[in-house]
Amino acid sequence: MKILVANPNTSSGVTDRLVASAKLVASPGTELLPMTAAYGVPYIATRAEAAVGAVAALEMLAERRSGIDAAIVAAFGDPGLGGARELFDFPIVGMAEAAMLSACMLGRSFAIVSFAKALEPWFAEIVAWHGLSGRCAAIRMLDEGFRSIDDVQDEKEAVLIELALRTVTDDGADVVILAGAPLAGLANKIRDRVPVPLVDGIQAATVMAEGLVRMRPRKATAGTYRRPAAKDSKGLSAALANVIGHRDS
Amino acid sequence: MKILVANPNTSSGVTDRLVASAKLVASPGTELLPMTAAYGVPYIATRAEAAVGAVAALEMLAERRSGIDAAIVAAFGDPGLGGARELFDFPIVGMAEAAMLSACMLGRSFAIVSFAKALEPWFAEIVAWHGLSGRCAAIRMLDEGFRSIDDVQDEKEAVLIELALRTVTDDGADVVILAGAPLAGLANKIRDRVPVPLVDGIQAATVMAEGLVRMRPRKATAGTYRRPAAKDSKGLSAALANVIGHRDS
Amino acid sequence: MKILVANPNTSSGVTDRLVASAKLVASPGTELLPMTAAYGVPYIATRAEAAVGAVAALEMLAERRSGIDAAIVAAFGDPGLGGARELFDFPIVGMAEAAMLSACMLGRSFAIVSFAKALEPWFAEIVAWHGLSGRCAAIRMLDEGFRSIDDVQDEKEAVLIELALRTVTDDGADVVILAGAPLAGLANKIRDRVPVPLVDGIQAATVMAEGLVRMRPRKATAGTYRRPAAKDSKGLSAALANVIGHRDS
Amino acid sequence: MKILVANPNTSSGVTDRLVASAKLVASPGTELLPMTAAYGVPYIATRAEAAVGAVAALEMLAERRSGIDAAIVAAFGDPGLGGARELFDFPIVGMAEAAMLSACMLGRSFAIVSFAKALEPWFAEIVAWHGLSGRCAAIRMLDEGFRSIDDVQDEKEAVLIELALRTVTDDGADVVILAGAPLAGLANKIRDRVPVPLVDGIQAATVMAEGLVRMRPRKATAGTYRRPAAKDSKGLSAALANVIGHRDS
Amino acid sequence: MKILVANPNTSSGVTDRLVASAKLVASPGTELLPMTAAYGVPYIATRAEAAVGAVAALEMLAERRSGIDAAIVAAFGDPGLGGARELFDFPIVGMAEAAMLSACMLGRSFAIVSFAKALEPWFAEIVAWHGLSGRCAAIRMLDEGFRSIDDVQDEKEAVLIELALRTVTDDGADVVILAGAPLAGLANKIRDRVPVPLVDGIQAATVMAEGLVRMRPRKATAGTYRRPAAKDSKGLSAALANVIGHRDS
Amino acid sequence: MKILVANPNTSSGVTDRLVASAKLVASPGTELLPMTAAYGVPYIATRAEAAVGAVAALEMLAERRSGIDAAIVAAFGDPGLGGARELFDFPIVGMAEAAMLSACMLGRSFAIVSFAKALEPWFAEIVAWHGLSGRCAAIRMLDEGFRSIDDVQDEKEAVLIELALRTVTDDGADVVILAGAPLAGLANKIRDRVPVPLVDGIQAATVMAEGLVRMRPRKATAGTYRRPAAKDSKGLSAALANVIGHRDS
Repeated sequence: MKILVANPNTSSGVTDRLVASAKLVASPGTELLPMTAAYGVPYIATRAEAAVGAVAALEMLAERRSGIDAAIVAAFGDPGLGGARELFDFPIVGMAEAAMLSACMLGRSFAIVSFAKALEPWFAEIVAWHGLSGRCAAIRMLDEGFRSIDDVQDEKEAVLIELALRTVTDDGADVVILAGAPLAGLANKIRDRVPVPLVDGIQAATVMAEGLVRMRPRKATAGTYRRPAAKDSKGLSAALANVIGHRDS
Repeated sequence: MKILVANPNTSSGVTDRLVASAKLVASPGTELLPMTAAYGVPYIATRAEAAVGAVAALEMLAERRSGIDAAIVAAFGDPGLGGARELFDFPIVGMAEAAMLSACMLGRSFAIVSFAKALEPWFAEIVAWHGLSGRCAAIRMLDEGFRSIDDVQDEKEAVLIELALRTVTDDGADVVILAGAPLAGLANKIRDRVPVPLVDGIQAATVMAEGLVRMRPRKATAGTYRRPAAKDSKGLSAALANVIGHRDS
Repeated sequence: MKILVANPNTSSGVTDRLVASAKLVASPGTELLPMTAAYGVPYIATRAEAAVGAVAALEMLAERRSGIDAAIVAAFGDPGLGGARELFDFPIVGMAEAAMLSACMLGRSFAIVSFAKALEPWFAEIVAWHGLSGRCAAIRMLDEGFRSIDDVQDEKEAVLIELALRTVTDDGADVVILAGAPLAGLANKIRDRVPVPLVDGIQAATVMAEGLVRMRPRKATAGTYRRPAAKDSKGLSAALANVIGHRDS
Repeated sequence: MKILVANPNTSSGVTDRLVASAKLVASPGTELLPMTAAYGVPYIATRAEAAVGAVAALEMLAERRSGIDAAIVAAFGDPGLGGARELFDFPIVGMAEAAMLSACMLGRSFAIVSFAKALEPWFAEIVAWHGLSGRCAAIRMLDEGFRSIDDVQDEKEAVLIELALRTVTDDGADVVILAGAPLAGLANKIRDRVPVPLVDGIQAATVMAEGLVRMRPRKATAGTYRRPAAKDSKGLSAALANVIGHRDS
Repeated sequence: MKILVANPNTSSGVTDRLVASAKLVASPGTELLPMTAAYGVPYIATRAEAAVGAVAALEMLAERRSGIDAAIVAAFGDPGLGGARELFDFPIVGMAEAAMLSACMLGRSFAIVSFAKALEPWFAEIVAWHGLSGRCAAIRMLDEGFRSIDDVQDEKEAVLIELALRTVTDDGADVVILAGAPLAGLANKIRDRVPVPLVDGIQAATVMAEGLVRMRPRKATAGTYRRPAAKDSKGLSAALANVIGHRDS
Repeated sequence: MKILVANPNTSSGVTDRLVASAKLVASPGTELLPMTAAYGVPYIATRAEAAVGAVAALEMLAERRSGIDAAIVAAFGDPGLGGARELFDFPIVGMAEAAMLSACMLGRSFAIVSFAKALEPWFAEIVAWHGLSGRCAAIRMLDEGFRSIDDVQDEKEAVLIELALRTVTDDGADVVILAGAPLAGLANKIRDRVPVPLVDGIQAATVMAEGLVRMRPRKATAGTYRRPAAKDSKGLSAALANVIGHRDS
């Protein structure tokens, strides 16, 4: 089974970290295909940046759409997820979505913990978009500077644990999602220092994508994820324009 | 990986059907352990019957708790699921829950279709309990008699397809869940005759259980699914009394 | 008028306390018939224990169903209430339900105060089940040990008042429900030390049950509380099996 | 026990009908004190008319506040209820409120049926104000002319039954509230012709008021129903001005 | 364009302040017509007082209905707004409504800050009535005495700024509404001392009223704001009785 | 006052139509600056196309950010609106947002009517994003082909009126929004043939933008619409990269 891991950020270091974490849970026969956005920002943190990431995600999926069984939109706010489900016929999983749905099976309420205050509004909106605000006990964010996105999870490990504990004691969280690609893999390291289950977004997305592939759902030809009618466009990547224009087979 | 398939109904024919459907999606290394309730009703359809099924589910899990990696509560209304998550330290998945969470990755809204009007109130309550009413477009039920629960999916195939189509055209469903153990396996058969993805509850539960096992979440020692303090009881099965009384190691 | 007070806990001391409190508000012609669960736990505090209590409640009502005008499910989380309303033709009132509905007539928002942290998740779920989360300002629980359930209301009176006051000042509660059978009667004692109305669950249930009897509602033969079709069962008490099997007249 | 039945409509015929229906359920020791608004409209049907009725209700309660144990605001939309609870220290019950809260104990969802289309927006707003929209399956209104408000329940009996049946079959209502003072007493007459429990607003209000009196809740001195500080006013009835100005003892 | 500024409070000083603030944003061709309630209380702060203010608002609009293009109900809780929209054919804007809708265009969530604790319940209810509770981050009120309503905004400027800052830092507000007529004009003065946009209710109402007039919406003859049928009344002002009785042309 | 009308569609004919309709309500001193997207699709109808339109909107605003007082994102689903509010310091109004907020002042519930079934999911999501689902009675779409987007409003006028009428009679809408740029101006033409107020999106956006400019709100430096920290990017238009990189002054 081939699963595309499409990272809408431009930092390939982040992509590497995601794939390393995903491999910890992937089934033997699963091949993870990493891909990093060609344009945009190194790490999406705002609604404006997520808008750019959404198009980048669609273009990555369009480019690599042949020969894959499923794809993961590998940024926590799931940029472009809805549009991707319209355009493509393989299962697509968002990292925020997979994390939250997994968390729903491990607790009545989950919290989201991440490393930058700037991410909070975007994360709150994706929780609402998925209709899961009622299950979300809190979003708590690190509110201090850090040296680099590449090792923020090591540098700030103690503070992140502290934040996770507060969501349990103060907000009543039953599960904590460690959100954002730069925190991929952290859950495994601090597992015994937080008294509730931790969820790693890319790991959740990996097992969810595998599961959907095994369930073999058909592509909708009705409903809101049916494929839109062919349309002309201008200024898009050739791959995406071909998909939108139905020149893709 | 060993997954207990605990059927809170007393009909072993239903258990067989569940396991047969689950095997269609289970990973190579997964062993499914079937178990059928020793008391209760052949097929749970009401709140009162679900109350009995909840205790039956807890007792089954207590009895078979050693040596398993995960368990599935294999009735669509997930009887006893919350209590089970308190008591046991392995992942437990509800069939309704797994179906709905899978459906959330395949569409914006799902519908639930099943074979008996009597099931509707119970199903509606479990949707609400999971906090997913906002994603549920409709619950539509067969409203006519049938010969036997064992072959209702064959006898009523055409009507069930008709119901599924109506949830798409009239209720705007993007995905249809074929709910209830007696419909296990039907999704595969009618896949091409409904224009949106179909979800089979036991198949969804199987891949979700596998995924949770791979993610290796810890048992909560805080939050609402922490294990309750030891307590004396009377009149329960020895296995469940031992679990409640912390005499289980 | 005869009202069954069915206590799903196995502690008869709790039953005595409930009836003593109920008598403070019962009308002259009302006879309260106490009954204590034959199996389960001395005091239900978790979802798993409530599952057992739900069946115990159904069996108690089945056993005493003749010659009564109404019944009270006398544990705050209303175990088995939905199922009971399906099976029986007399009015049945839950203690949590009656307390909350009464509170709605005394304030815009109510708080729930009780004596054990373990109760909170179960209570939160029953508030949601009744559709009253929007009226619930807070659930605050005593978070310290106590000597015995029988005199926790005396031993912890000062702390419980303190908790009630905090729901008023910090959470904006207009009314405080003193929840859980072991607190029955406390509201009368501390009435003047909390600046908002206090509601005692069993007292609320008593006046609500009397009121329903006077309104003489018919048994539904349609809707979700119509009586389910007769069904065979195994392993249940003879009384409950007879009710489920329609062998009860 | 003395209960004021304050009808905010100016029609005394409606008051008579209300009291006649209330007497069918009142306890032996209960005395019902009827009062009819001195100004406003014969029968409130719109938001504008309800605004007038709210002040009329406050003035009636102010005038008759001595020597009563409780009051009923006897129009279905509960005009002035919130303000009344601020100003007075005896329990006050709204007719819509009491009907809906009673219905919550008889079914999972209730419908409201009444005799004039014009009432619908006002009724929908009062359901929402009470936080009970989630329990309300439908509001269905007679949409045709009638001879007189005094005998609309007789003239339109068949159509009203038809409407009630449709809320059961089409909207899934478990209980039907016959709303509006002109329908007082109808529930008793058509009880056997609708397959779910019927609720009569004034009867529900009567038993609720009796119940609250028996529970003896204290007047809040904190929370949103504490009594407002004394204030000067101009142009109000002497009684209401005295209450608002704290010149009432 | 003539816009009636109908102040349902009896204090003309408040009216003056409102109009002064409105003039800061009104378009060149806009004429603001001030009007002060003839009866009621100097400053509405409770539900009971708002009930009186609702009728006062309807009577003011009835009296001045000729020759105006729009009207503003100039008290923050929008007393009588729904009824006014039924009765009159020109656009009518509520001050709370306009403030909140404006705030929705300036942030994801707004807070409401005002000068008296007593106002909070009334304000919370109007937020809910407008269906905007999901956008409201907090309501924070000054909780200390002040000399006079006429210069509370000067006397308490520092504390009000402090409250506004807390809604930003503690409640996550993106915008702060300075609510209540006595705070009219304050937003302009403290604009640079709060790090998010401030909204002044009467200014918002003024530009909203102008906008609606320019859009020239027709009067509804269907839907819930269609004009009610003519009805007799007694005891109302001649102007309002004429409008209700359709004797107004 | 200069207001940028940024059309995220690539069709300049649509832009012309928008500006023509806007001029019908603009104040004398208002100058409308039209701009059409340089890339994307002629008319956005799906989530995927809206993702492209969001970036196009951000780039247009970045390019024309100097010397304007406000901007309108002139496509009904408000693509890029949240991101735009982060990046820029002038008021920005979405066409869907403005239409819905205006509708809230004209009725309790609004309906959205437009010309293509494909638009419905996107529109439903924008209603939810604005937190206004509770005020939205229905979304009804033309479900038949048409010759050209440029004169769909003429060709389908009768059917669109029919749809609007159905939202009033069947869905209880108090106001109807004619949504989508190709319907700009239609409201004025069919005003007398629908019995409730009609709202034209671009007209609503124009008066709302004017109103916000007059209110002179400050740019947030806190809250979720504060400007994000400077960030490097690659592959974006120079103008947008400069704004994101804080090289814009």
